[in-house]
Amino acid sequence: MAWIYIEDAGRHVGEKVTLKGWVQRLRSSGKIKFLIARDGTGVMQCVIAKQDSEQAFQEADALTQESSVIVEGVVRKEERAPGGFELTVSRLQAVSIAENYPITPKEHGVDFLLRNRHLWLRSSRQHAVLRIRAEVMKACRDYLDGLGFIEVSAPIFTPSASEGTTTLFETKYFDETAYLSQSGQLYNEAAAMAFGRVYCFGPTFRAEKSKTRRHLTEFWMLEPEMAYADLETVFEVSEGLVTAVVERVLERRVRELEVLGRDVSLLERVTPPFGRMSYDEAVERLRAGGFDIEWGRDLGAEEETFLSESFEKPTFIHDYPAEAKSFYMEPTPGGDKTVRCTDLIAPEGVGEIIGGSERISDLALLEKRIDDHGLPRGAFEWYLDLRRYGSVPHAGFGLGLERTVAWICGIKHIREAIPFPRTIYRVYP
Amino acid sequence: MAWIYIEDAGRHVGEKVTLKGWVQRLRSSGKIKFLIARDGTGVMQCVIAKQDSEQAFQEADALTQESSVIVEGVVRKEERAPGGFELTVSRLQAVSIAENYPITPKEHGVDFLLRNRHLWLRSSRQHAVLRIRAEVMKACRDYLDGLGFIEVSAPIFTPSASEGTTTLFETKYFDETAYLSQSGQLYNEAAAMAFGRVYCFGPTFRAEKSKTRRHLTEFWMLEPEMAYADLETVFEVSEGLVTAVVERVLERRVRELEVLGRDVSLLERVTPPFGRMSYDEAVERLRAGGFDIEWGRDLGAEEETFLSESFEKPTFIHDYPAEAKSFYMEPTPGGDKTVRCTDLIAPEGVGEIIGGSERISDLALLEKRIDDHGLPRGAFEWYLDLRRYGSVPHAGFGLGLERTVAWICGIKHIREAIPFPRTIYRVYP
Repeated sequence: MAWIYIEDAGRHVGEKVTLKGWVQRLRSSGKIKFLIARDGTGVMQCVIAKQDSEQAFQEADALTQESSVIVEGVVRKEERAPGGFELTVSRLQAVSIAENYPITPKEHGVDFLLRNRHLWLRSSRQHAVLRIRAEVMKACRDYLDGLGFIEVSAPIFTPSASEGTTTLFETKYFDETAYLSQSGQLYNEAAAMAFGRVYCFGPTFRAEKSKTRRHLTEFWMLEPEMAYADLETVFEVSEGLVTAVVERVLERRVRELEVLGRDVSLLERVTPPFGRMSYDEAVERLRAGGFDIEWGRDLGAEEETFLSESFEKPTFIHDYPAEAKSFYMEPTPGGDKTVRCTDLIAPEGVGEIIGGSERISDLALLEKRIDDHGLPRGAFEWYLDLRRYGSVPHAGFGLGLERTVAWICGIKHIREAIPFPRTIYRVYP
Repeated sequence: MAWIYIEDAGRHVGEKVTLKGWVQRLRSSGKIKFLIARDGTGVMQCVIAKQDSEQAFQEADALTQESSVIVEGVVRKEERAPGGFELTVSRLQAVSIAENYPITPKEHGVDFLLRNRHLWLRSSRQHAVLRIRAEVMKACRDYLDGLGFIEVSAPIFTPSASEGTTTLFETKYFDETAYLSQSGQLYNEAAAMAFGRVYCFGPTFRAEKSKTRRHLTEFWMLEPEMAYADLETVFEVSEGLVTAVVERVLERRVRELEVLGRDVSLLERVTPPFGRMSYDEAVERLRAGGFDIEWGRDLGAEEETFLSESFEKPTFIHDYPAEAKSFYMEPTPGGDKTVRCTDLIAPEGVGEIIGGSERISDLALLEKRIDDHGLPRGAFEWYLDLRRYGSVPHAGFGLGLERTVAWICGIKHIREAIPFPRTIYRVYP
């Protein structure tokens, strides 16, 4: 008899099949028991009637929440059942009985749930979020691969604390010290000169002592980098990317968005063109909104939240003051106080999900910026080489995976948007 | 005028186009100059005739190897040119002149090349290897996604040195100590109980002091994990995966294999079924081959190389002695000296590219193994939970990306199979 996955049940109506999964819920109603089984791909109501199978009816007595179970039966269409199908059970085998599963349908504190993250993953909401995360990852790659980008992994171990060590994790590397990468960008720039258009996609690390709902010490970042490109290219590619990702989730993960109670009409609005606003304009808006912000400072989380609450669509804020940003950004033509960079702010109060810029391609200017920032020139010799040998205008950006997933899912805290969140106080399980 | 990528030249024959790239080679022949341009997607011969464009002919004088250049001209079919097309140049613009590019067509030492890895990436061979790497990554995901696996990222920061600290990189994690993950397997097991079939794919870290051609301190690993599965499932899925990956490279990266001078007939042999051989049989073969190997010991690199030289196809060696393997492996039924695990040995002397096993699903047995191995029980409480709550037979494996790429490319040392290799002596650039 065929072992099928619940997500494929629609192709097996009227057939006798085997399901292998776990007990999500079980309730009795006289001579009928209703077992809601989950198998990782979906949930299915299994109807166990005494008259159909005495064996199954009795075996079901021992079942508890999260016990593992193999069920045989016939798939029937049933509009009222979750997923639209149910199983008329003819045989049931308890594989392993779970005793006192700690996560019950009642409310639990977040700390308790995080400590039991290895089990919490099984609950419907977490399941939905992480399936959407996987879909987002895939959609990101499909979009860039479709444009001809090549995936070139950036290293995690990096030799020098190029931008100061305060937010870097340090590790003993045999007889030396190495640091865990905060971004693959510098390496991506080298790769873009070899391959034209590249991206890296992997974990990055920041030892920030932030305890906000938007910070993790370990998070995934997608970083595309393009040769012969400028800030306009960043607008274009990132707008296309975010649109494609949201479309894909709407297309393939509707069931998961439903579980999360997400208002999909808000996602359906995510179509090009996105909004654009200069930093100067953002500052004006903030001041009009009662914020006391000095020109020259980067925008903080609260300010981004305020701005994003007034957006219907993701909005680019661009041309920030040079003093608020990294050393490698190309100056805005005709002005040396701002640089060609942008942050993409997601709507609904979410804030920044993408940061990008045009990179300085001129050797002398980049050297000057490194000196002005008091950075150690030696650590950047290889990076300067990219301007010595066939320098071209180039640009790129980084998309924070978990922030993007949290936004799409409509969840407040990004710790639920990664399988095993790492925060300042948590490195377990 | 349209900016095109060289890989798309075939769709623009007879059209006037713009190329943006770099100078790979330039040679003069009287009133004609031949510029081999690369743009990251391919190389194209650009013919600069004085009679066609005086401007281009003169501008070309300044060009050096790896100078960046924008070329306009008409695409023509030309069988004798690399790639099959050439450009009749009407205009040329040097973007940035490279002076004394350090990597010349002559021979360089490996240490020099590794120190200049950020530039070495541009050379044809490295280019080919890393394009194949990207293709392999994509093929791996496509294969597993097609089977319904969900990508669930495993964490890099892990709380405890669960299997001893000797090969772990350690980092200060605020007031605690954390270790960089050597494998996502234990986390994958938790995820498999939630999603049925999952994989993680990311960097992993081993502080091994190995200086062999098969070791990196940072390398990528693809790790699928499956609930309701056994060693037979590992054979099946990994055989399907490796076959699909090799097929894909043969289909889409023929040009790159050609650059590498790879004998593709050896790859065309990679079809199911792969070979299978028990550990016992491997030991017999090794002894017959003159190796002095004691039953119970794991196979070393030399032994794997010896065995793999006699294989035409990748071959599974299975059921190793328990004492040579990790604590979590399911005993072979009917014998407690061996465990249900396998290594997949690639042919041509390459050695292991996959290691996998069935995992112990019985709580009491797993507890005993943890104690027998002298491991700290506390660190494994969450892992033991997976056996307390709905335990099922499950299995999985890990595929070393760089070893697989090195094998497919036919290169000896895996340091060329990753963009920025990290070895015991190298963490730069």
